[in-house]
Amino acid sequence: MKTLYVELGERSYPIHIGPGLLRRTDLLQPAIHGRQVMIVTNETIAPLYLESTQQGLAGFEVRSVILPDGEQYKNLDTLNRIFDALLEHRFNRKCTLVALGGGVIGDLAGFAAASYQRGVDFIQIPTTLLAQVDSSVGGKTGVNHRLGKNMIGAFHQPNCVLADTDTLSTLDDRQLAAGLAEIIKYGLIRDADFFNWLEQNMDLLTARDTDALIFAVARSCLNKAEVVAADERESGQRALLNLGHTFGHAIETGMGYGAWLHGEAIATGMLLAAQLSARQGWLEPGEVDRIGHLLARAGLPTRIPGDMSTQQFLDLMAVDKKVMDSGLRLVLLEAIGAAVVTDAFDPEQLRATLDAAHEE
Amino acid sequence: MKTLYVELGERSYPIHIGPGLLRRTDLLQPAIHGRQVMIVTNETIAPLYLESTQQGLAGFEVRSVILPDGEQYKNLDTLNRIFDALLEHRFNRKCTLVALGGGVIGDLAGFAAASYQRGVDFIQIPTTLLAQVDSSVGGKTGVNHRLGKNMIGAFHQPNCVLADTDTLSTLDDRQLAAGLAEIIKYGLIRDADFFNWLEQNMDLLTARDTDALIFAVARSCLNKAEVVAADERESGQRALLNLGHTFGHAIETGMGYGAWLHGEAIATGMLLAAQLSARQGWLEPGEVDRIGHLLARAGLPTRIPGDMSTQQFLDLMAVDKKVMDSGLRLVLLEAIGAAVVTDAFDPEQLRATLDAAHEE
Repeated sequence: MKTLYVELGERSYPIHIGPGLLRRTDLLQPAIHGRQVMIVTNETIAPLYLESTQQGLAGFEVRSVILPDGEQYKNLDTLNRIFDALLEHRFNRKCTLVALGGGVIGDLAGFAAASYQRGVDFIQIPTTLLAQVDSSVGGKTGVNHRLGKNMIGAFHQPNCVLADTDTLSTLDDRQLAAGLAEIIKYGLIRDADFFNWLEQNMDLLTARDTDALIFAVARSCLNKAEVVAADERESGQRALLNLGHTFGHAIETGMGYGAWLHGEAIATGMLLAAQLSARQGWLEPGEVDRIGHLLARAGLPTRIPGDMSTQQFLDLMAVDKKVMDSGLRLVLLEAIGAAVVTDAFDPEQLRATLDAAHEE
Repeated sequence: MKTLYVELGERSYPIHIGPGLLRRTDLLQPAIHGRQVMIVTNETIAPLYLESTQQGLAGFEVRSVILPDGEQYKNLDTLNRIFDALLEHRFNRKCTLVALGGGVIGDLAGFAAASYQRGVDFIQIPTTLLAQVDSSVGGKTGVNHRLGKNMIGAFHQPNCVLADTDTLSTLDDRQLAAGLAEIIKYGLIRDADFFNWLEQNMDLLTARDTDALIFAVARSCLNKAEVVAADERESGQRALLNLGHTFGHAIETGMGYGAWLHGEAIATGMLLAAQLSARQGWLEPGEVDRIGHLLARAGLPTRIPGDMSTQQFLDLMAVDKKVMDSGLRLVLLEAIGAAVVTDAFDPEQLRATLDAAHEE
């Protein structure tokens, strides 16, 4: 097991990474300050891991709420089901919510914890690779609105994160690849050594080797934690974490939510960012090839869907949340391991990049 | 006009109190950092004050959302109507929400501002006396759940509060009295000089004299601001602000929400707290009489409704939110101007106090 700490002053917390953590009462107990614990999970995860988690919480008053599985349920109505459960069991302000599941469960349970009685304690047990490397660090919680993703939410830090690598054994290959996309992202934006390591160890990761997964999850969380600690409220450096996201959101919206996994869309988006960076002369063509090759080895798509036109893609990029704030700014690459946020790119090069990147 | 400042470090903000403030662009402008402003108000207030408020916001992109009026609409569904309006008009993270109305509007708009895109700017324009002295200081926002009041919410500080005393001219007498109950509360818990002033000036207040209202609102906000600045997250001193509330919530719940106004229930609750304090020997009987007399002059009820039994009252006190946390603790008085939070009272004296306080 590896443990790292997200340093946020009073609200600092540990991330434990390794196999067999669900039952580790010794890790959970220090993060719980009252007696009442509500496990928030979904219909897919509950049969697999709810019982083990309950065992790890022996001695507390443990209740659970089992939500439907899927991004389409990440809304205020589902959030209210968590409040129903908390109030039906008369949970008080000292209670703790445990998010057991992927990113959707983490976002829902985290926002419920942020808002229940104006804020209660919260533990993350992410069960997907994506959630282990992404939503377990940073404190972003929230739900979707029919007019936009993640439009309603709060910053709320967990007391503790348990990333149990055993739970990755039940992930399907697409979900695993989606997590690898985020892992590759950390190498691209600020950690060239890690990118090199990923090139050497991608086969171990896709084979779900425990030690390789622990290293990759820990190194990713460390990178994200460093960024977040420097910039908790997302203004400067934190924006680099959005590498590939403006491109990726266009694919997710254009194809309909759920057709592409978020990580898949981000993978293609990161390669588009690299290709645009190369057209601007900021990145070597050989580096673009390395990025595309690594994404492909992880099992990720790297081309724009054939039924999305370049103009549709550009239109969708223009309505992205981050664009609404400040015009079209993109995260681009000056090297593998060095990203910048910029609007100093040539729109014609952007169009040419998109034209060239469509599926055959 | 008087201006006082709530000191909360980075999140400090001014409260301006006086007549004719709605149109004061010079006061609003420094509190707005983007271009987009959403006025959140209700069907009662909009015909009276929406146009003036829009005039005060000339030069900004101003939209408004008009909600139904009443505590029964303080829920997640109504909250979502604010998000609908924000997203339909593509409001970005630099937008500002303006709460124009009483406490319900302030709580709804404040929670919407806390959660929209994980937090945007917020201005309070409270139009009831109660909201001017209570919800404009402290940063509490939120909505009700069918199983409990104010169970879902956030702490979110406004950038600025405009308490326009002209808006009090359209309040009905019961609403005015409900605000006076909270004002008297500040005298009781920590400001004996203010209590004396209220005894000398109650007739001016019920006659809605502008200067008297400005003084009373400012002195109340100052008292609350001092408490909140010392204890932003409600643990110690802030609990004193709940004088009369455990008793009052029992009346509100027992009579059905809306039958008694919150301030009316708190008034009776404060007198019950004073009577229990006297039975414990902590308060002089003459002081209890002064409190009862002042509440009556303000037009407030001071007896328990005849159709609530003492046992029903005790049962309802036991399910109050604050009781769920830590057993039955009450705010009691050691003198006018000196309150304490305590569980060191004799339950038989509590019962006797309730028995004696029923309507004839």
